[in-house]
Amino acid sequence: MTVELQPAFRTAMRRLASSVAIVALHDQVLRGMTATSLVSVTMDPPTLLICVNRSASIHAHLRVAREMSVNLLSVAQASIADAFAGKVSPDERFRHGEWQDCDGIPYLVGAQANVLCRIASLTVVGSHTMILAEVHRVSVSDSLSPLLYCDGGYRAIAQVPANS
Amino acid sequence: MTVELQPAFRTAMRRLASSVAIVALHDQVLRGMTATSLVSVTMDPPTLLICVNRSASIHAHLRVAREMSVNLLSVAQASIADAFAGKVSPDERFRHGEWQDCDGIPYLVGAQANVLCRIASLTVVGSHTMILAEVHRVSVSDSLSPLLYCDGGYRAIAQVPANS
Repeated sequence: MTVELQPAFRTAMRRLASSVAIVALHDQVLRGMTATSLVSVTMDPPTLLICVNRSASIHAHLRVAREMSVNLLSVAQASIADAFAGKVSPDERFRHGEWQDCDGIPYLVGAQANVLCRIASLTVVGSHTMILAEVHRVSVSDSLSPLLYCDGGYRAIAQVPANS
Repeated sequence: MTVELQPAFRTAMRRLASSVAIVALHDQVLRGMTATSLVSVTMDPPTLLICVNRSASIHAHLRVAREMSVNLLSVAQASIADAFAGKVSPDERFRHGEWQDCDGIPYLVGAQANVLCRIASLTVVGSHTMILAEVHRVSVSDSLSPLLYCDGGYRAIAQVPANS
């Protein structure tokens, strides 16, 4: 059972759909990565949780930067997600998409939402670090068109079929 | 700014799409709740994180039960999600959907995936408790049709439009 557990879990997680976000910060250099492990934890204080692989180029900067943006992507931003997921080297990624600065934190124009956060805690769990981030500034787009990731590819949302 | 932060964060989180799951356990009584704050944390050991409101009827049972199932719903199971989200009292919920038992843990037939877990840790953050759960058994459906929650309602997945 143990031998087959990891591939089975991986397959199950392909059934899990999630929004695609880019986490971005400025610690002498700009660093950013695409993330799909993101949840809202509590409203008071407004807190997000995001999981980052410890091998990611942004990882070493998290303790130093202390502030970051979480940018929820729209369906029109799939190519930016690809760039920040590793198709482009860390130093070149911010040429993809339009990035602006708010108090030293980079954020992505045209995202579904920009959530600016203070990193409250970092907890290592296996290959990943769980980041608890307290939100201090938010902007939200008017239109609803989130980019999703599911079953190894990008997806959009749709209405639930009437016959289901 | 502080006064307006919470509603702005709430609005931003409406842009976050997520899979819908039912967390279920057996601690003298069956208890279950619908959850949308679920992420995969690491593959080794296979670990999920899920956030549960401390006011939920299942909450008091988490420390005792130690084991639970996380059932990723399919689009055909929206009415079951409603029942476990509060439309039905805790004692009546398991009449909705077909539930079976695996070593004392209830799991939902017809889900996108059933993930059986051991509760590894519980951490209170504001109104919620973050559960880290080590996965020990998984089953996955053949078809891909996850039920999503976004912008206050249920959704399905679709292909990304070609013009985006």
